[in-house]
Amino acid sequence: MPSASTKGSSRGTLFYAQSGGVTAVINATASAVIQTARSHRVRVLAGRNGILGALNEELIDTSRESAATIAALAHTPGGAFGSCRVKLKSLEADRPKYERMLEVFRAHDVRYFLYNGGNDSADTALKVSQLATEFDYPLTCIGVPKTVDNDLAVTDTCPGFGSAAKYTAVSIREAALDVAAMASTSTKVFVYEAMGRHAGWLAAAAGLAGRGPDQAPHLILFPERTFDEAAFFQQVKAVVERVGYCVVVASEGIQTADGRFVADAGGGKDSFGHTQLGGVASHLAARVKDALGYKVHWTLPDYLQRSARHLASETDLKQAKAVGKAAVEYALKGLNGTMPVIVRTSDAPYRWKIAPAPLSDIANHEKKMPAEFIRDDGYGITDAARRYLEPLIRGEAPPSYGRNGLPKYVELANVLVPARLPPWT
Amino acid sequence: MPSASTKGSSRGTLFYAQSGGVTAVINATASAVIQTARSHRVRVLAGRNGILGALNEELIDTSRESAATIAALAHTPGGAFGSCRVKLKSLEADRPKYERMLEVFRAHDVRYFLYNGGNDSADTALKVSQLATEFDYPLTCIGVPKTVDNDLAVTDTCPGFGSAAKYTAVSIREAALDVAAMASTSTKVFVYEAMGRHAGWLAAAAGLAGRGPDQAPHLILFPERTFDEAAFFQQVKAVVERVGYCVVVASEGIQTADGRFVADAGGGKDSFGHTQLGGVASHLAARVKDALGYKVHWTLPDYLQRSARHLASETDLKQAKAVGKAAVEYALKGLNGTMPVIVRTSDAPYRWKIAPAPLSDIANHEKKMPAEFIRDDGYGITDAARRYLEPLIRGEAPPSYGRNGLPKYVELANVLVPARLPPWT
Repeated sequence: MPSASTKGSSRGTLFYAQSGGVTAVINATASAVIQTARSHRVRVLAGRNGILGALNEELIDTSRESAATIAALAHTPGGAFGSCRVKLKSLEADRPKYERMLEVFRAHDVRYFLYNGGNDSADTALKVSQLATEFDYPLTCIGVPKTVDNDLAVTDTCPGFGSAAKYTAVSIREAALDVAAMASTSTKVFVYEAMGRHAGWLAAAAGLAGRGPDQAPHLILFPERTFDEAAFFQQVKAVVERVGYCVVVASEGIQTADGRFVADAGGGKDSFGHTQLGGVASHLAARVKDALGYKVHWTLPDYLQRSARHLASETDLKQAKAVGKAAVEYALKGLNGTMPVIVRTSDAPYRWKIAPAPLSDIANHEKKMPAEFIRDDGYGITDAARRYLEPLIRGEAPPSYGRNGLPKYVELANVLVPARLPPWT
Repeated sequence: MPSASTKGSSRGTLFYAQSGGVTAVINATASAVIQTARSHRVRVLAGRNGILGALNEELIDTSRESAATIAALAHTPGGAFGSCRVKLKSLEADRPKYERMLEVFRAHDVRYFLYNGGNDSADTALKVSQLATEFDYPLTCIGVPKTVDNDLAVTDTCPGFGSAAKYTAVSIREAALDVAAMASTSTKVFVYEAMGRHAGWLAAAAGLAGRGPDQAPHLILFPERTFDEAAFFQQVKAVVERVGYCVVVASEGIQTADGRFVADAGGGKDSFGHTQLGGVASHLAARVKDALGYKVHWTLPDYLQRSARHLASETDLKQAKAVGKAAVEYALKGLNGTMPVIVRTSDAPYRWKIAPAPLSDIANHEKKMPAEFIRDDGYGITDAARRYLEPLIRGEAPPSYGRNGLPKYVELANVLVPARLPPWT
């Protein structure tokens, strides 16, 4: 029986949740989900803080937001409903949580579950779908791709990556001009730390900033290659001697031959017992300074790289919207257990389409950089990588700015629908 | 007697050099200098790597660059001719250097010296002027303001600051949306390290990102105020408990009561004898983690904040061009020993003009944040600060982008004119 708030909605209720690290364009996906659902007269409830919203029965009534606000959401970074880092385990281990979710869905007549995240989220959506089948509860579960790490299987790329990639390439281009100007008497080595614990996609994107061995970035360190400090020092020295300065991009996930993360090398406790936070860039910069004596600078953009909506890629934005729209359409078609993925049909001109892929092919897989994307010497990208990456950062899609010089980002009211179940503990 | 390369130039030769850390818009000043000089038929030689170019007689012939390239320079960050960190000492201590400079100027018929930098550069320009008078060499010396630190005396603001300020405010706004979305299960405290060794202008600019105590940035740490760790922890805890997360902006120059830079606390050597590089943000993040147990993230934007031409402030760009144009006009008028400064004539509507100020009032002075710009509790900015800062980040002036998704930044040929003197050692 539909509740008062679903009056006029003849197609049921859809639950949408954001998962894991947010991106510059995940809200564009949310915006497209809500717009598409509205056009089909489907009510959208959003999880407050992602899947926790389903467990805690904290369901945001998106119908309270105006069409203008939902449109503006497409230009706002962050995760408008809140996201979370909660990985559900197997059905056996976490059965009470899965059952609780279904209970909440049933209590609010949720017939469609859209989970916007990475491979963990695809796995969760798949398991919810399996349990719904077991309970004979009609629920269509759809994964919606998102991650700046670009490490999802099957899809050609992941919404969020293109914008972070554009941020990375532009930032390296700009910082390199700064370093070049100062190198005669100041900084000779600059180290940029890119996100990517397991896959070097963002570090690779930095490679788009220049061409040839003398243009920055001169050296890229990928987690797909073993980090050899002595060899790295040699490379840095050779670049500084040849070019006058050296711009290094290091993936946070690089490891030495013994399998240790370089980022952890600077961590631990200092002599006062105080925590020292790790970091690849600061560690490499210090080591280069010690070993080669160059003046060094380094940057850790951290969250700036994945929230820089002001520098979003138009390609990325379009794809973020397209997967949101397709996810609702797949849900209404009953394509249970699928994810709308991006299929590249041509490099030049760049062409792509959206197609459904089984969640089982995506869940818990991780896509690393293919070997043919990394230069033979291990310190740069190949032409094949450029052909793949370049269309993804193409086009600009700036937000509009206010008179105060800041982008016009919206914040939602995020009004919860009344709970119908006892609190969950 | 004019040289071959000055044929058709009836107004003599101008030497222009960039000094110290570069900015997103110092090349816009250079562009305006060259355009204005060309319109007056004055030849411009630029110092390769700043004042070193004058010492080493490495003079870049800017007439080799097309009008289109000089126009595009206004949209290119970094320092197109190279800059340097070389501070000349007193006339007594560094007399051979000053004399060499005059020799080089004389050899190339340089009658105007434009030095684009901060208070050190103003001092150098002043000293060169004094020596020229002593030697009876007709030379008009003009300082041209530039610094992201905004710490020059007399001028209302410094070209370069507004764009770095806009970068700071926008980055904080974006990152805060990210942190807000994740705080329920992930990062609760985020620390951003802003440039500013002695003055907290850039940290203050972050304050434009939000309004009121619950909007990010929640806490700003200024070098103008003594850093008290215990009080800071209390503030962080209170914000996290009230808001759910806490965004901190820390100026790199904050000091404890005993006068030590907090940034140096994390530095030194680790137990292996390896250098540990300092940093305010990483240190504060580690201390907060230890003391309060929150999950922390931090960012060190470093050069990104001063080279982000893609996010330049339109106000800043206009002022960077205006001081370049005025500097040439002052030179031609013989306003020796002056600097074109920005005079604010109205806050709302924001109005400004350019006027000459004596270099002697600017050289070696440093403008800190006035006390009335810092909130009584020491952790935020006042309305007076907002009235001052807000116009400076107003307006957007993006570069044009290529099909490859990157800004179209130019690189100059930087062809040197033939040397006329023996090498200098």
